Amino acid sequence: MERPRHQGMAKNTYMRWRLPLVCLLWEVAMIILFGVFVRFGPEADAHWEEEKQEMNLTSDIENDFYFRYPSFQDVHVMIFVGFGFLMTFLKRYGFGAVGFNFLLAAFGIQWALLMQGWFHSFKSGKILIGVENLINADFCVGSVCIAFGAILGKTSPIQLLIMTLFQVTLFAVNEYILLNLLHIKDAGGSMTIHTFGAYFGLTVTRILYRPNLEQSKDKQGSVYHSDLFAMIGTLYLWMYWPSFNSAISEHGDAQHRAAINTYCSLAACVLTTVAFSSMLQKKGKLDMVHIQNATLAGGVAVGTSAEMMLTPYGSLIVGFICGIVSTVGYVYLTPFLESRLHIQDTCGIHNLHAMPGLIGGIVGAITAAAATEDVYGKEGFIKAFDFTGTYQTRTPSVQGGFQAAGIVVSLLMAFAGGALVGAILKLPFWGDAAAENCFEDDIYWEVPEDEESDVYHMHNPDKPASP
Amino acid sequence: MERPRHQGMAKNTYMRWRLPLVCLLWEVAMIILFGVFVRFGPEADAHWEEEKQEMNLTSDIENDFYFRYPSFQDVHVMIFVGFGFLMTFLKRYGFGAVGFNFLLAAFGIQWALLMQGWFHSFKSGKILIGVENLINADFCVGSVCIAFGAILGKTSPIQLLIMTLFQVTLFAVNEYILLNLLHIKDAGGSMTIHTFGAYFGLTVTRILYRPNLEQSKDKQGSVYHSDLFAMIGTLYLWMYWPSFNSAISEHGDAQHRAAINTYCSLAACVLTTVAFSSMLQKKGKLDMVHIQNATLAGGVAVGTSAEMMLTPYGSLIVGFICGIVSTVGYVYLTPFLESRLHIQDTCGIHNLHAMPGLIGGIVGAITAAAATEDVYGKEGFIKAFDFTGTYQTRTPSVQGGFQAAGIVVSLLMAFAGGALVGAILKLPFWGDAAAENCFEDDIYWEVPEDEESDVYHMHNPDKPASP
Amino acid sequence: MERPRHQGMAKNTYMRWRLPLVCLLWEVAMIILFGVFVRFGPEADAHWEEEKQEMNLTSDIENDFYFRYPSFQDVHVMIFVGFGFLMTFLKRYGFGAVGFNFLLAAFGIQWALLMQGWFHSFKSGKILIGVENLINADFCVGSVCIAFGAILGKTSPIQLLIMTLFQVTLFAVNEYILLNLLHIKDAGGSMTIHTFGAYFGLTVTRILYRPNLEQSKDKQGSVYHSDLFAMIGTLYLWMYWPSFNSAISEHGDAQHRAAINTYCSLAACVLTTVAFSSMLQKKGKLDMVHIQNATLAGGVAVGTSAEMMLTPYGSLIVGFICGIVSTVGYVYLTPFLESRLHIQDTCGIHNLHAMPGLIGGIVGAITAAAATEDVYGKEGFIKAFDFTGTYQTRTPSVQGGFQAAGIVVSLLMAFAGGALVGAILKLPFWGDAAAENCFEDDIYWEVPEDEESDVYHMHNPDKPASP
Repeated sequence: MERPRHQGMAKNTYMRWRLPLVCLLWEVAMIILFGVFVRFGPEADAHWEEEKQEMNLTSDIENDFYFRYPSFQDVHVMIFVGFGFLMTFLKRYGFGAVGFNFLLAAFGIQWALLMQGWFHSFKSGKILIGVENLINADFCVGSVCIAFGAILGKTSPIQLLIMTLFQVTLFAVNEYILLNLLHIKDAGGSMTIHTFGAYFGLTVTRILYRPNLEQSKDKQGSVYHSDLFAMIGTLYLWMYWPSFNSAISEHGDAQHRAAINTYCSLAACVLTTVAFSSMLQKKGKLDMVHIQNATLAGGVAVGTSAEMMLTPYGSLIVGFICGIVSTVGYVYLTPFLESRLHIQDTCGIHNLHAMPGLIGGIVGAITAAAATEDVYGKEGFIKAFDFTGTYQTRTPSVQGGFQAAGIVVSLLMAFAGGALVGAILKLPFWGDAAAENCFEDDIYWEVPEDEESDVYHMHNPDKPASP
Repeated sequence: MERPRHQGMAKNTYMRWRLPLVCLLWEVAMIILFGVFVRFGPEADAHWEEEKQEMNLTSDIENDFYFRYPSFQDVHVMIFVGFGFLMTFLKRYGFGAVGFNFLLAAFGIQWALLMQGWFHSFKSGKILIGVENLINADFCVGSVCIAFGAILGKTSPIQLLIMTLFQVTLFAVNEYILLNLLHIKDAGGSMTIHTFGAYFGLTVTRILYRPNLEQSKDKQGSVYHSDLFAMIGTLYLWMYWPSFNSAISEHGDAQHRAAINTYCSLAACVLTTVAFSSMLQKKGKLDMVHIQNATLAGGVAVGTSAEMMLTPYGSLIVGFICGIVSTVGYVYLTPFLESRLHIQDTCGIHNLHAMPGLIGGIVGAITAAAATEDVYGKEGFIKAFDFTGTYQTRTPSVQGGFQAAGIVVSLLMAFAGGALVGAILKLPFWGDAAAENCFEDDIYWEVPEDEESDVYHMHNPDKPASP
Repeated sequence: MERPRHQGMAKNTYMRWRLPLVCLLWEVAMIILFGVFVRFGPEADAHWEEEKQEMNLTSDIENDFYFRYPSFQDVHVMIFVGFGFLMTFLKRYGFGAVGFNFLLAAFGIQWALLMQGWFHSFKSGKILIGVENLINADFCVGSVCIAFGAILGKTSPIQLLIMTLFQVTLFAVNEYILLNLLHIKDAGGSMTIHTFGAYFGLTVTRILYRPNLEQSKDKQGSVYHSDLFAMIGTLYLWMYWPSFNSAISEHGDAQHRAAINTYCSLAACVLTTVAFSSMLQKKGKLDMVHIQNATLAGGVAVGTSAEMMLTPYGSLIVGFICGIVSTVGYVYLTPFLESRLHIQDTCGIHNLHAMPGLIGGIVGAITAAAATEDVYGKEGFIKAFDFTGTYQTRTPSVQGGFQAAGIVVSLLMAFAGGALVGAILKLPFWGDAAAENCFEDDIYWEVPEDEESDVYHMHNPDKPASP
């Protein structure tokens, strides 16, 4: 039994030929490009035995695989389960949240391997990949998952794939400018992933503004169990964030330190989130939206500085501030952005990624500028900021300046890229749903008829179900 | 309040004495057999300090534990959460899916440690175990979890335990023939785990054919949240599959390469699954069954070749094909198998494991046959296929032939073993439910009375709830 | 629409100023204390390059991070997802279960880093932290999560934070007495974590006895999907328990051995749990409460001995016994404790942690007392029990005696500490709910209005919903 109200849709959301065509064509393109360009890096190639002798390594344990694979798997979980389930909070958009996230990330990692490969792992005409490339591809896709949060429930899967194609491309360009041209540090991606991804997504959703979105307001809330599903996403993001921020840091102390700093920042963030969630509600009750999101802001905000000597108490301070900023953002800023600036931000990524990402960039700039040989040790200082070769003479304060410039570049790239992509997605033939059908899986998915939803339609046909 | 319709059951599903007896007797048997046979391997034994000196190892990090433990834990998650939750999609069989999977796997790993130990780790009368044995035990049990998918909802827990006992035994024999007698490679188990496990399960379900199964058709569908629970299983299988296929590969490049190949194949598979899921549905809507299952076929199909020089684009091609084959299988082949061949395959393991497993075996044979010293390097070539000792003179094309023979052996073992076990399970005293009570937890579990199900029974007593 | 029955609450559960105040003040205190005391340990500090030379290490892979970080992440998942979701079984207390667990653990790990740091990692006025400290902090908080299980649904978040503050403090003192003064072994914390945590929690809940708790009896059960959420917690605890028990063992064989022993014990435990769950129910049906909890008892009970030469079959025996003890406890002991001793133990931690913890302490004492140089090897023997320095002449039987003393000390600390903390929590201004509002998220959380719950209130206003 099809629900009648969807029959008379104003918009054509029929995906049968468009979606398969995009998926198949793009995957064929991936195969061709991988065939031409992508090969195993020396540590994954069967010539490794010879490589080991050349590099004078005595044991297989020196293979980068053993330094980074556990972190890679944690990051992988964050992208697919973390982001996927975090967005299942909507009562009738769980399939879309976890399913479309799955789709765009699966495409995105392939395209990111190519784009990032051309910029960073290109040797004699081939992209040589290893576990670090897999992590970087996940990172890149992470920025798309963030942007997806802003437009969640309002776009077709084709639009998401198109956004992924462009955003991954721009991500790689921005990352190249920051890491290679400006020679800045951003191991956990406060700037490259969060600031860029969030402002990109916010620009896209601004351009796709839907004036009549309140028509689907009854579906924009959660139900009891959808909030619990979302907590799976939250917790996996929270628990594995130390792996995220340390995954591509230098072997040894830097990876170790990045994990500890992130752990501390996240712990502090939980307490201030709870404090402000209770404080800002009339009856002092906690709001699941804050617990699901603002508790993670601390991880975002040490993304740049985690591998630096931020110190545990420095991390606590950053987490402390971000829990407050993010929770206050959910209560006051999100409604303001929607009503005044027409930015409809479904998941509130402005509070979870945009502001904490900016803070993270600034904290990174300050921490870098404050670095001394005394604190890092002579060798450690050079290693931490890679002050070698052309950059041998760069001072900490100059480094801090370049770090700050990285924030600005990321913002500009995000606004320009988001505007371009938003304009493309506004074209009328991508199959997005009408305003009254947003946040509803039924448009793009075969949805089982639940007992409870039958009852719902019997008894409460017109009642808005949730705040 | 017991639901009345279960009172008049034709079959005796009373487990009170049978199930405890089987569990307790078998566990006592395990204790005795472990007591006689199982000891710690040298890397887990307290004599490790002496071992280290003998093997001339300078650091504890050379202990195999550090090479394989993270992969082991990922595989462990796949068996218990991955398979367990993948099967929770049925609206009223979640307890059975995750609970019986837990039971059979917990028994199976013990029995597999013994069976595989006798064949592979038997030294001076003792089975010496280490982390690699734990992984192999999980692998072996994986094939039972696959077979469980075919008979899900239609058997008693005793039947599952009996199937586990026999299937683990036959798995170990088949594995011994393939790995030791034929000297073939199958690190991720396309043949030993997937082909064997799936055709074994399909044979069992064929023999247990229930002509009146449409009586429980209303319970064979999902509800909204059960589909989300199943996605937890899907995603953990998908994310950790690179660990699965690389877990027992040689240290160094082989493990590294196996992870990358699997990652690529799985990514491609998602896109073709989405494409065909949409294309094969009249309204172009996506089907959760496909997303939950066919997206994983790419991991199955590089199980044999992942540690070989399949190359990233080769993996993409394999994944591309398998997403299509598997999705088409769900739409056309599963109904055909049920109506014409009387194979009732609850989870569609024919599409997820059987066909992709066969493809995996064939891809492995071709990749092995195509191997050259040029591609692998001189040392790498010997190491990759273990062409040492008796096998010093084996050529790639001969290896390819043996690999192909491995597929045939696995199929024969599966059909013969499945027929035998099916016949045993058909005996009338194992307590399976009547056709109208299949796919219903209430038979074997104390089930809480939910509000919604009360309502369901009040308002829709006769209505089939799902397509 | 607020549900009317909560309007007339006898007790003041208004959190708006109390909870934020506690969270903010305590977090500020953490920042100050971390600022004064906490610094990076040598393996996480930027001076690591110099450290490496001093310690004569040739590779970054020797950094403790690579030995322990994967285990740390597994333990982290157990604390936040494992314990958090295990407690979501209650139909209307999922937010509280997973949310308050999140809150108390996030605070607890910070306070534990300080408390344990002062006792164990204090050098020249600073606490030097590394990955092992993070694991130990999670362990310490684990004991609080256990105690939370006893009082689940009956306390305010402020009470939980106060309990955490005291329990972490006492945990650190008890741990210091056991590990440093008595020089005993307890890698997986049978005594320090489980025995202490459980009897502490049971004492607290005894003192907080609520005579009218049957007024919220209808909310003390589960619903179908809440039981599935709880299984996520169970499985993650079960799968990662080998990491838990091995996480801080000596590098090499001890870590390897601890993982294998735990794996074996847990596997055996599942079978006896299923056997007794079925046997003790009139109709032979399995009870989710047992599967969710008693299957884990085997992990608890090898917490002390897992790193010793318990041997795989010894582990199976321990698991065998604990599955039985724990399941029988749920059926007979929990009701007895409630009706006769007025111990209201929401999650049945007496069966999952208290009794298995005691068994674990005893098994550890026996295994230690039975140790011989023959079994461990000369070097292995000294290394396993750290019989160096002052303890050079300690014999296994003396060690066994000290191990047994550790059980007694842990019990005394738990009873005394629990009594003290219980008395503090009994003060009337912490905002706990009235008896009729226990096990109800609505008191402390903004809860979405579900369709099904509307229906529930319409049709079954007076009906108790679950057994």
